[in-house]
Amino acid sequence: MLSKFQAPPTASELKVVHEAIKPYIIQTSVLSHPDIDKKSGCQVFFKCENFQNIGAFKMRGATAAALSLSEAELKNGLATHSSGNHAQAVAKIAQILGIPAYIVMPDNAPAVKKEATLSYGAKVIDCKPTTADREATLERIVAETGAYFIHPYNDFNVIAGQATAAMELIEQVGDLDIIMAPIGGGGLMSGTSLAVRYFLPDGLAIGTEPEEVNDAYLSLRAGTIIENKTTNTIADGLRTTIREKTFGILQTAMNDIITVSEAEIIAAMKLLWEKQKIVIEPSCAVPFAALLQQKERFAGKRVGIIISGGNVDFNNLPF
Amino acid sequence: MLSKFQAPPTASELKVVHEAIKPYIIQTSVLSHPDIDKKSGCQVFFKCENFQNIGAFKMRGATAAALSLSEAELKNGLATHSSGNHAQAVAKIAQILGIPAYIVMPDNAPAVKKEATLSYGAKVIDCKPTTADREATLERIVAETGAYFIHPYNDFNVIAGQATAAMELIEQVGDLDIIMAPIGGGGLMSGTSLAVRYFLPDGLAIGTEPEEVNDAYLSLRAGTIIENKTTNTIADGLRTTIREKTFGILQTAMNDIITVSEAEIIAAMKLLWEKQKIVIEPSCAVPFAALLQQKERFAGKRVGIIISGGNVDFNNLPF
Repeated sequence: MLSKFQAPPTASELKVVHEAIKPYIIQTSVLSHPDIDKKSGCQVFFKCENFQNIGAFKMRGATAAALSLSEAELKNGLATHSSGNHAQAVAKIAQILGIPAYIVMPDNAPAVKKEATLSYGAKVIDCKPTTADREATLERIVAETGAYFIHPYNDFNVIAGQATAAMELIEQVGDLDIIMAPIGGGGLMSGTSLAVRYFLPDGLAIGTEPEEVNDAYLSLRAGTIIENKTTNTIADGLRTTIREKTFGILQTAMNDIITVSEAEIIAAMKLLWEKQKIVIEPSCAVPFAALLQQKERFAGKRVGIIISGGNVDFNNLPF
Repeated sequence: MLSKFQAPPTASELKVVHEAIKPYIIQTSVLSHPDIDKKSGCQVFFKCENFQNIGAFKMRGATAAALSLSEAELKNGLATHSSGNHAQAVAKIAQILGIPAYIVMPDNAPAVKKEATLSYGAKVIDCKPTTADREATLERIVAETGAYFIHPYNDFNVIAGQATAAMELIEQVGDLDIIMAPIGGGGLMSGTSLAVRYFLPDGLAIGTEPEEVNDAYLSLRAGTIIENKTTNTIADGLRTTIREKTFGILQTAMNDIITVSEAEIIAAMKLLWEKQKIVIEPSCAVPFAALLQQKERFAGKRVGIIISGGNVDFNNLPF
């Protein structure tokens, strides 16, 4: 059983988490393509978490959190609220561990996401599409079932799990100058930043965000958390706002942040589908869009990008 | 310079070809996914030639053929007729070698394929969409330019190049029970069959074909080449008919052939996009469709599948 971290995990704690979750996750491939490198003016290594169990990195964090729970905490199952990849990740690890999963989902969530969550044996509970009803419904479910709530990102064990994607990338391709990832709630980028600080001490951790939901960018500038005013981005995985645990890590361990426009996201996404031949979500295209926006800065470097997931509706592509 | 093979290449000739083409091709990744294995009832290893230069295995064969040409044969450039991936492969290797490429293409070929070929610096010459005009136009171009014609598959050097995909797969994942590939003109499956005979002597080479263009299936049964009556399949890479060199190798080196329906191709293609998260052409889904059709036969085995390419029109998906 893993410890429940009360502070950002140390390097050795991250290594313990990585070993613990290995039986439940896929060591995903790293891809490159000469046409992508030519277009970018640098060497780009994509860590393909779209090939992960449930199609996204979220499997790492949910597993790291679940493995920190005692038998007593696990026995009534796991619960969360999410309409996205975290829902599927909690459902999947609960299925593997043979315990129930209760997922609170807004009643306007896409049918395809609900079906995917159900396919892992979870119980899906509808709520109204507001934060208030989402949280109230979750509280009721937890009270009724005794299930353990795993937050999608504001949790040091979840962050530790997400860090393992960058750890593997560093193991797989060796020295990198920069590692980039997208920021939604900040779990992936917090973990990535810690991995860079510990295991790539000369490297830079650069976070990326859509201009339309630039809460991390604004919060870092202001020194206090500033909520997103809209969710008006195609990058549906990045509409959430950072919270105190991720904010704290991003403030201290991330080197820089770049924001990109919707048009830049769509163009980068199309290029990755066309040239790298991988199915990725719009959110994943954000770091690559940032690289293309600031090519001079990356010229000649070795750049790692965490491709966060590939759960996308084929009937609703933006190109 | 490679030899010009006058007979099916030997094991050591294949090794020489593989070394020679390595600087020009990508050693593509092999992917697996637990959900795919569960659905298949066996272990499936996808050799992802959709990640290859120009997005398809054809780069291997075109390069192997080009490297068998003397300076005198190369100096006026390369020529071929193709509306598909072979056109792009010949254009790309000519570009790398710094010589012209002349590609004869039917005037109804999709704009996207013409653009891709042009993007590698080739000269595209329109012809009428008939075999007669295609061949007459090619003859005229060769006479006018002195360019060297590389046949898409009925050429032992091209076949040797295509064999290297299966050779790499065997190196990458070790013992396999079966390797499968699709059959169009038969270049890929001829090379795959030779690779299995030489480097996986206890393994089976199983070819696969759409029912709608089952020329290889019928030809093998009849003992003589039988032309396709229609081109009525979504697997646009497999509409061509086998020729004497590929037919001879398939007769002697391939273990079996399975045909699949259009519905089976589309279902398998969708599953690979959804679960393995890779962009693949319909042609690539044919071997996986054959596996799903005959699951009992593959139960518990280790099966390699050559994913032949990923050049597909995103606005024309069958799902």
